[in-house]
Order: sequence, then C-alpha cells, then structure tokens
Amino acid sequence: MRIGILNSGGDCPGLNAVIHGVVGAATQLGWEVIGFRDGFEGMLPPGDYMMLDKVKTTGIMKLGGTILGTTNKGHFVAKVGKGDVMAVPPDVMEKAKKIIEMLEIRALIVVGGDGSLTTGLQLFEEGIPVIGVPKTIDNDLSATAMTFGFDSAVATVVDALDRLHTTASSHKRVIVLEVMGRNAGWIALYGGIGGGADIILLPEIPFSMEHVADAVKAKEASGQHSVLIVVAEGASPIDGEITTKGESAGEVRFGGIGDKVAAAVEEMTGKETRACTLGHLQRGGAPTALDRILGTRFGVKAVDLIHEGAFGQMVSYQQYHVGSVPIKEAVNELRLVEADGEVVNAARATGVSFGDGA
Amino acid sequence: MRIGILNSGGDCPGLNAVIHGVVGAATQLGWEVIGFRDGFEGMLPPGDYMMLDKVKTTGIMKLGGTILGTTNKGHFVAKVGKGDVMAVPPDVMEKAKKIIEMLEIRALIVVGGDGSLTTGLQLFEEGIPVIGVPKTIDNDLSATAMTFGFDSAVATVVDALDRLHTTASSHKRVIVLEVMGRNAGWIALYGGIGGGADIILLPEIPFSMEHVADAVKAKEASGQHSVLIVVAEGASPIDGEITTKGESAGEVRFGGIGDKVAAAVEEMTGKETRACTLGHLQRGGAPTALDRILGTRFGVKAVDLIHEGAFGQMVSYQQYHVGSVPIKEAVNELRLVEADGEVVNAARATGVSFGDGA
Amino acid sequence: MRIGILNSGGDCPGLNAVIHGVVGAATQLGWEVIGFRDGFEGMLPPGDYMMLDKVKTTGIMKLGGTILGTTNKGHFVAKVGKGDVMAVPPDVMEKAKKIIEMLEIRALIVVGGDGSLTTGLQLFEEGIPVIGVPKTIDNDLSATAMTFGFDSAVATVVDALDRLHTTASSHKRVIVLEVMGRNAGWIALYGGIGGGADIILLPEIPFSMEHVADAVKAKEASGQHSVLIVVAEGASPIDGEITTKGESAGEVRFGGIGDKVAAAVEEMTGKETRACTLGHLQRGGAPTALDRILGTRFGVKAVDLIHEGAFGQMVSYQQYHVGSVPIKEAVNELRLVEADGEVVNAARATGVSFGDGA
Amino acid sequence: MRIGILNSGGDCPGLNAVIHGVVGAATQLGWEVIGFRDGFEGMLPPGDYMMLDKVKTTGIMKLGGTILGTTNKGHFVAKVGKGDVMAVPPDVMEKAKKIIEMLEIRALIVVGGDGSLTTGLQLFEEGIPVIGVPKTIDNDLSATAMTFGFDSAVATVVDALDRLHTTASSHKRVIVLEVMGRNAGWIALYGGIGGGADIILLPEIPFSMEHVADAVKAKEASGQHSVLIVVAEGASPIDGEITTKGESAGEVRFGGIGDKVAAAVEEMTGKETRACTLGHLQRGGAPTALDRILGTRFGVKAVDLIHEGAFGQMVSYQQYHVGSVPIKEAVNELRLVEADGEVVNAARATGVSFGDGA
Repeated sequence: MRIGILNSGGDCPGLNAVIHGVVGAATQLGWEVIGFRDGFEGMLPPGDYMMLDKVKTTGIMKLGGTILGTTNKGHFVAKVGKGDVMAVPPDVMEKAKKIIEMLEIRALIVVGGDGSLTTGLQLFEEGIPVIGVPKTIDNDLSATAMTFGFDSAVATVVDALDRLHTTASSHKRVIVLEVMGRNAGWIALYGGIGGGADIILLPEIPFSMEHVADAVKAKEASGQHSVLIVVAEGASPIDGEITTKGESAGEVRFGGIGDKVAAAVEEMTGKETRACTLGHLQRGGAPTALDRILGTRFGVKAVDLIHEGAFGQMVSYQQYHVGSVPIKEAVNELRLVEADGEVVNAARATGVSFGDGA
Repeated sequence: MRIGILNSGGDCPGLNAVIHGVVGAATQLGWEVIGFRDGFEGMLPPGDYMMLDKVKTTGIMKLGGTILGTTNKGHFVAKVGKGDVMAVPPDVMEKAKKIIEMLEIRALIVVGGDGSLTTGLQLFEEGIPVIGVPKTIDNDLSATAMTFGFDSAVATVVDALDRLHTTASSHKRVIVLEVMGRNAGWIALYGGIGGGADIILLPEIPFSMEHVADAVKAKEASGQHSVLIVVAEGASPIDGEITTKGESAGEVRFGGIGDKVAAAVEEMTGKETRACTLGHLQRGGAPTALDRILGTRFGVKAVDLIHEGAFGQMVSYQQYHVGSVPIKEAVNELRLVEADGEVVNAARATGVSFGDGA
Repeated sequence: MRIGILNSGGDCPGLNAVIHGVVGAATQLGWEVIGFRDGFEGMLPPGDYMMLDKVKTTGIMKLGGTILGTTNKGHFVAKVGKGDVMAVPPDVMEKAKKIIEMLEIRALIVVGGDGSLTTGLQLFEEGIPVIGVPKTIDNDLSATAMTFGFDSAVATVVDALDRLHTTASSHKRVIVLEVMGRNAGWIALYGGIGGGADIILLPEIPFSMEHVADAVKAKEASGQHSVLIVVAEGASPIDGEITTKGESAGEVRFGGIGDKVAAAVEEMTGKETRACTLGHLQRGGAPTALDRILGTRFGVKAVDLIHEGAFGQMVSYQQYHVGSVPIKEAVNELRLVEADGEVVNAARATGVSFGDGA
Repeated sequence: MRIGILNSGGDCPGLNAVIHGVVGAATQLGWEVIGFRDGFEGMLPPGDYMMLDKVKTTGIMKLGGTILGTTNKGHFVAKVGKGDVMAVPPDVMEKAKKIIEMLEIRALIVVGGDGSLTTGLQLFEEGIPVIGVPKTIDNDLSATAMTFGFDSAVATVVDALDRLHTTASSHKRVIVLEVMGRNAGWIALYGGIGGGADIILLPEIPFSMEHVADAVKAKEASGQHSVLIVVAEGASPIDGEITTKGESAGEVRFGGIGDKVAAAVEEMTGKETRACTLGHLQRGGAPTALDRILGTRFGVKAVDLIHEGAFGQMVSYQQYHVGSVPIKEAVNELRLVEADGEVVNAARATGVSFGDGA
C-alpha cells in the first residue's frame, strides 16, 4: 500500500507536523508514503517526489516551512485573462492521473487552502482518491474551528508587539504594526489582544481615520504616551483612501495600509509615529506546541480517513475533536471575525479601540 | 463602585492577564479595583492590598507569576489531623466579611483552583458576592474546556524536549522528563506529542516497566538510538513500586517517578539513561499568546458577571466562548485524559507508546 | 550623597541593565540615585525625574527599552539651518547647572552615543561632574571593544533569518532582509553569519548589483534554490543608485536599500524575491544574557568612577575587562568592519558573497 | 584532497556551527570532508563515518547537539583501575592510523575538551596530522578567551532564572538553581548576574551555609521576600558536608549540591525553599547567535591551519581574533573565576552575596 501527500499554496507553520503525523500513522500501518515536491507541480512528468519515512521526518515537526516545498503558482490553475480560474486544464489532469497510476498511489492527501482544495476536489471528481487537509494561517475557513499555523502567527505578532512596546514607550511614540489577514482579521485580533495593542483595525470592522486619531489623542490625554496600533493588511477605512500631505514628502514609505495609517496618525495627532510590517516573518516561525499537536492530529486523521475509504473528505476540527467534512462543503466559505462577538467585545471592554467610534 | 480581586493557590502563567482584563474592564465602567495580596490571606486584618489601575497593570500580561502574590497555605483552610479540610473557620470568616464591608467592596473575584473556589463558595454562601475564575495549570477542571496556564506549561515542556532531543541523540541516550500532572496527564500528553516524545506515561493509563523497557528496545532495534520519555508526576506503574538495584548505590537520585523510571530503564535495557525534572520552570514561564488572551477574556467576563449580578457563578470556556457556570457545580469534578480518546489514539497511531502494551 | 543618571538618544537593549547596575552599586554605598526622564530634557525646569531604588529596579534588567524614557531630539542640541550642531545653548546650560545644584547631585551619569556624550562632555567642561557610559547598538565606537545592545540586535536578526530561511526554502525564493547599520555593518555581518545568510551587504564594502545577481545565479546553479540576503541600511552600490523598471510598476515598494536590492535581484535574475525590513523590532527585544551582564558591569563601573572622582571619563570595555577612557578621546571615532579582517574572511571562506566580486 | 572531522566528549551548543564552518571552508577549497561518528569511536574498523557537504550541513548551525554524534566513553582511553588514563592503547592507535590511511585523509580536525585534545595530541605525535578545536561549555580553558557553547548555556540559565523569579516572588520563596560547572563557575557567575540572582555559589569561592543563610535573612529584612540562589555543581561549603535534619524526613531529595543547599536554607531560615536542577537542558539548547558565529569562525580557522600545514595547533580565541596555539600548551590548564576579579566585584557591588561573608 502506498499513499501520496503534497502541500500547496503559501507555507504555514505546522505543515511539517502534518507530514510527521501522516508518515507516523502510515508507517504503523505498514504503508509507504511518497511526498510530491512544490505542490501539485511535483505530479507533472517526470514527477518530482521523495520517499518519506520515519527517519526523514524525525524532528521536522519543530521546523517552520515544509520539507516538501510548496508554491502558490503553477500549471494546475488555468489563467483566464487577468485572474486565475480554479480549473485544472484537461491535459494537466491527464498527467496527474498517470503519475498516480504509475506510482501505484492508492490515496492522495492534499494539504492546502481554498484554492488548493478546490483543485484537490477536481482531482477527486476525476477519480483520484483524495483526502483534504485544511491549511490557512488566517484561520478563516468556516468548516474547521481551528487550523494549524494560526497560533504560531499570533505568537509572532505578540512577540513583535512586546518588542515594539518597549521601544514605543521609551520614545513616547505611536507604532503601527501591519500583520497578515486579507479577508479575516483573526491574526490582528488575537495578536493585538495578546500583545496589548491599544487600537486594532480589522477587515471586518471598517474604521475611520478620525476615530483612530481620536483614540490616539484620548490615550495621550489619559497620560499614556505610547500607543500601539495593529492593522490587518486587508483592513480599510470607511471613508475611502487615506491621503496625507506626507505622501509627496518622500520620507514616509507608502506601501501597505500600515504605512498609510502611520502617516495619517502622525499628521492628525502630531505624535511621532513609526510603521512596521511583519510580512514573511509571520510564516516562517517555528510552530508553537499547539500547532505541532494540531498538525500531527490532522495528519493522523488523514490516514484514518484513507483507511476508512472516506475519499473526498477533508479533515476538520470541531468540538475539540478532529473529524471530517466533505471537501465540497468546506471550501470557499469564510469564517470572519464577528464585529459584535465575545472576543471583540472583551477587547472593547478593556479599552481597545477598533477605530469605529464604538 | 469598588470591586476586589485575589488569586489563591499555586501560581500559573496567565494570572496577570486575568488581572489585566479585570482592571481594564472595570476601569471602562468607572469602577475601582482593589487587589488582595497573597490569596485570601490579604483579607485578614489589617488587610494587605493594593489599588489597581491601568497604569499599574500595563504590560503585566506578559509576565509569569502574579503581581498580587499568592499562597497555597493559610488561615482560610482548617487543618484537621493530617489533611486539610476546605472549611473556613468561623472567626476567619467574620474577619473576611468585615474587611469586605470596611473597604466597601461590592464584589469579590476569586481566581483559584478546586480548593480556592470551594473557599470562595463558602464566602458566597455567607453573603459575600463572589465571582469565581478557574485556575488550574493542569487543565483538569471538567466545567471548563480550557484554562489559562496550560498552554504555557505545554510550551515549556515542548521547549525542554527540543533541547533534550538534541543532546539525547548526540549521545544515543534515553532521557526521562518528569512534568506536572498529579491526577490528570494533559501536560504530559500534549507536551509529549508536541515535543516528539517516544513514550508518554500518564496517571490515567497505568504503565508497566516491562512494556516501557520493551518500547525502548523496539526503538533501538528499529535503528533509533535515542529515546525520549515523558512522565507525569502522578503516573504510576501497574505492578506496584519500581525497585532497582541502583537504589542503594547512591548514584542515581531517587526522588520522583522520573528518577525511578530512568533507573529502571537503564537497568532493564542497558542503555545510558538520564532523568530531568522540570519542576517550577513550568509555572514561571512567560504566558503564551493563547494564555494571555484567555486570561484577559476570563477577567473581562468576571466583570461582566458582576455587572449582571450573577454572583456565585464561575467563568468557564465552552464551545469556544467564555460563559459561566455555578461555582457549586464546577468544583471537584476532574476532567481526565480519555485513555481511548482521539488525542491518545493519534499519538499511538504515530508510534508513541503509553507503556501499557497496547 | 546623591547621583543622577539619564539615557539619551535611541533606545537600546541593556539600558535597564545599566540602570540596575548603577542603582545596585550606589545603594551598596548608601547613595541615592535620581533618574532624569527623556534624556537631557528631564533636566529642564521644573525637572522631570524619579527617585530610583532597588525595589523599583528589580527585574528591569530583562526588559528592553528604558524605564527612564529617552529621546533623540530636544533642547540640548542647537539647530543651525538644516543640521544639528552638538552645542548646548547657553541658557539651556544654565538651567541644567541649576537643577544639578538644586537637587544636590554630586555626579551625573550620561548613557548615550556620540552625540549625547558630546553633550555630556560640554556639561563636564562647564563644571558638572559627568561620567559617560557608551551606548551604540551598532557597536561602532572605537573606544570600546563591545557595547551592550549589539548582541541583542544580532540575536533579533538571526531569529528573523531563521524564520525567513524556512519560508524562503519552502518557496524557492530570494529574501532580502534590511537591518540597522548606517555607518558600520557589524549587525549585518554578525547577524548574517549567525543566520546563515548567503549574501551580506555592508557600508564598508561597496557592492555592485551585478555581483549580487551573479551570486544569486551561482547559488541557483549549485542547486540551492533559496537565497538569503542581509543588507545594512547604510550599504550602497558602487555604481550609484539602483534603478529598476519595476519602480514605476507600483507593485514593489521603494523605500530603503532592502526594497531596492530586492527589486533589482528579481529583475536581474528572474527569481521571485521578497524584501523585509526589521526596523524597530531590533531595538525593542529583551536583552540577551550578554547584554544584561555587560550593561550591569558598565553601570557598576560608572559608580566606581564617581567613587574615584574620575569625572570626564567614559566607561569602556577593553581586553575583556571594563575600564575607562577620557570622554574626549572616545567620541566621534568610529570602529568599522575591516573589509579584509578575520570575520569577513571567515564568512567569505564559507562561501558568503559581499557583492564585491571578491 | 580529503580531510576528516570528529567531535568527542560531552555535546555542546555550537558543535554543528564548527562542522558548518569546516565544510563551508573546505568546499570553497575543493576539498572533501569526512565526518566520523561518535567521537574517536567512528575511526575503529570498519569505520563509522559520513561524507559531509554543503547540502547536508545547510541549516545545522541552528541546532543544538551534533549531527555526528559524540561520546565521552570509548576505546581511545585506557582504564587503569578506577580512573581513566589519557593514553591511547597501542592496538587502537594502529587501527586509527590505518583508517586515516585507507580513507586517504590528509588532516584530522578533533573538536573536544581537555581529554579529547590529549588523545588528539597523541594521534599527532604518532604521525596523524591533527588540528584541535577547543570545546568546553564551562569556558574554562586557559588557552582561549572564549569557547562556543558557553553563551548558550548562560542563556539557558538566565531564561530559567527569569522563570523562577516570577514564581519565587509570587510565593515569597527561596529557589535554588543548580547549574553546570565542576571546576570553574563561569556559567553560574554569568548566568547568575544576567538572571538577577541574589546569591551565587562557585567552586572558586568556598562558601559557608551560615553566610548563605545570613544573606537570605538580610534580603528578607530589607523587604525582599523572594530569593534566588544559583549554585555551580562543583561548589562546596568551606565547613565540610552540609547536614540537615530534613535528610531523613524523605521529603527533600538529596542529590546534588543544589538540593543540599535548599534543605539547609529552609532549615536555617524557616523560609519555604525549593530546588531545581537544570542538568541536560543546558547542553541541548539552540546555540545563541554568538555561539553560532564563534563556532563557524573556529571551523574556518581549522581549515586555514590545515591549509598552512600547521598541524599540532589548536584554534584559539585571543584579543577578539581567532588564532591558534600548540595543542601541547593548551590542554589541562584551567581558566578559573578570579575571586577578586572585575566581574565578581561588579556582582558584589550590586549586592550579590557569594556566601563567603565578604
């Protein structure tokens, strides 16, 4: 018996724990595991893969990234004009089927996000026995209450805020930290609370620069001379584009929303303000204990599902247990931060502003 | 409006986050907060307490321990012969009531474990408006799905195992790590999985030294020359006390179960074996992001409950939300590791032995 | 007996250790310590300062930043046209003298870099008994073989490279990390070696983008698909400004040298390239053990020098011992990376490129 | 051209950095590198070794332990009665010579401490071209001002003290931490200062339990209710063996000096006291930036020395540069803490007690 595994899309702390779990569980059953390199691309002829065993996967759990490599580009996604369409071109599908047949792979575990799981679903519908494992560092998939990588990303944000806190308070500055989160603000919300941010700006709660500046001034008035602002990359102001005179001055860099918010805060409040973008530092951190454990459990469950012949299913975490749901139902539905949920309200209760004047 | 807070029993990462949450939420409501020092002891005349405000609690969230101090001894527990009885002596109760009255405290938040909450319940039954917040680093309270401190303790264990892994494999040794967990083995289980332990010994799964030695030999036979064993302090062998010839030799220290298991493994397998006890290092670590957030949410909820007048309730985490249950129902019922649960089975599936021959 | 202390200029890990050392040593001698807030600014009427004692300084050693606050602006530096001149305006000098007299301060410890020590020297020349303590996170002062803060900054860079390494290799990308170092490249050099960077660009070794691109291509050709580049903020290309077509495309952000190098690498090699700027994360980290110890020793030595009446001296580290040199000789002379020194050559020997074609 | 490398004796953070440096430098010169496994043992027929190249050594620098394995036992040390004699038995010497010849190894790099370097010296004297690299986590070799591993061990001690500080102060306890250091107390001294210990006990400064107890009482009297004591494993009381009534009570474990000091402190002061032994956690930590860099430089220098034909030399760090000394002069001379040196005096100046009544 031989099974295959690949991970696709952006890398994420915990991927190696999934591989560790899959190889561990498969080995106990006497199965062989083939790992395809660089996502689905490894399935294209002549095939780019490696045999995985317990020796090769010992100790990988603690490493960020993935020993298999990954990509968020490639041949399994058709390009139509400017956008990508999640449709595997027919010739590519044929090649994938052939390599699965040739390598005598009885089941394929696809670890990926929305897009990659959609591709996995197409492979399944074309007859390849696929099991999905959800991967989203943003923790924004509605079909699973938790995904690996999120806790590690939050830990990185909290560590960054701890560092920025000491330098901000030494200099009585405002510091704006831009973090991941295009559609969902979970990383900003949890990272912000854990790191003691004063203002948290999320995609789910449109903010106004007026309210943000007011919150900064209120902190100052209360005797708190340094202010930490966390902003998700996908957050956007309610009143359209942020413009500042500083934009032409050339000193402040205008890139992401973090830079813009920083420039506007400085202009509107007169307080010295700095911006910092975490970027790729969030992806590459060593996985936290939680993410290692969750990844391992996801990997083991994927092998279980193969054992049960439950193809087309995706591993999911619900009610503190790892179970499964049909891939079909799982993809594309986002789990967003509830603007009026318990966590946001707990933050508000302690004085955190969400820039919405509430 | 003025409220009081105290923490009692062993210290635990996240206590300061609870205080941060309570002070943050109370301040927003315009309330004052008094913190009693060293648990209930601070309520004895003339009273040992401090006024808490946002300035004093800024940045405390990231510190282990508790700024209020705590104790697991004192006057609120009657001693009867050898054991402790969770009954507040009448004269002590009177003193407590008086200080609450004198300081015009309208509600008292008690952050503690089984014993401390039982004491809190008695205060409540005597008319003091008490709100409970559960504290158990072992995560073994049935009334709440998660408690703060546990994730930090697991992180400490995982970090220790990472360190021991490199030295064990460099020297081809067996290393035994003893961790907290008298009744429940959650820390050993999660820490062991996250740190890649080969053998995990829990109070809930009685082990036999024969099976442990067999597991070590099996690893050796499979070409894995170093072995990591995690043992909860409350784990015990199915076949009674562990005895080894080494005991009299004086070289091996005989203290906890970890030392005993190490001596027995060395004797039974002939492999060089070392023991390590984490002890207090597990309590004092900086809280993880998760514990900071959970502690904050618990603190905010405690203030909410006061606001609602829901005295006699204990904050609890259920279904990913922070809610509450009556203190009465909450104490004394332990949440143990299920020997046949999903997490244990996931570990077994990857080849982890629990020393039970399964 | 009463002494004063202030820190001035940018914050730096280890400042609190200096304060800890000063307060510890002064307390043993029975002296009082006054800490001025926000650098020299705290000396302006009515005076902004706090009494420091052992209780207030317990545990501060492990915190980044400074409990006294600091600033790199203010009244003690005369502005002449565009630049700053290190000359204390006469009226400001009078005010400083008065507060020293009023508070009966017998000696003033000034912890600062070039500029701040120059100011300190002027105070000394005007009769204030000043002791200097060098502070430069860049480790670029010729009068001392080591300064606190540098090791912590290097640790932050190494941690960032560890994180970027896993994500870069998962995606087969080039990642460019911009770090501190305007004039001296010590942080980039040590951080780059410790973090396993492939290419290190320093102010002291002018680089050419051709050589950088060649080095990236050579790595690719040797089968190494991910490349890490560390660039000091003060590094500059030998052949003038870096221009790329991408500049107008708007996708790549053009800010510091890191962004520019990244854009040029992507254009010249065709490899996917990302940039990351550490910025303020480098200043705010918790001090490493080394920086805590060095800071403490510096603080103790400053008190020693007061005891000896050696005013006008600056603490310095030479031959593994903490001694002192005249402030006058110490300031303004930079210690730069030797382009042909042992450390650079060790890096070259292991295959690191400095972008100079050597 | 082919060279060999082995590490021998206890493992130490930074060993992999040495290997990284050696392989990097050798590869640049077009040389091949063979790594012997488990110290000198790997040289015994049939030979246990691996070819090392840049791919196999990428990223190893950040790992504790050694990818080559090591041992502090084996056939290269003759046993005479109870002790070990550093003399290679003639038949073993012949076998070693043969494998060096057979594998066409032109130079052998021996990374080790006193004992292993003595063995290396014998191999050199028998005609094997040996280069030594010093390895002592205790930093106690007089021929080199610094050795890799020490900074990492100190970092581990400081981290442990940070954790113990919060739990000690929460409970107003005395905590005794036993750390490495049989002959030299550098780890205890630097770790103790960096971690803010109140009392530091070293092999070089004989202590009396009376003075230790007095120091604890003095802290208590000054209002400091928690006390941290660091004790090197080789520290010993001036007045002979520590005896306490508690010894028979069975509750306190009697193992190392840490346990004994703790029991005596509790008995003599009445304060609740706990002991903690760091043990192997000190060896296995991830190397700090400093140790990674120093190890790399040592490895590069070893290759340099081969290139120069300077056999019989040992790499050493002097005057902030990596140079070399004859192995013969290097071994067996210990570098001890000066009881009246600047570092000890700096600690004393801040109020640290060394238990000697000074």
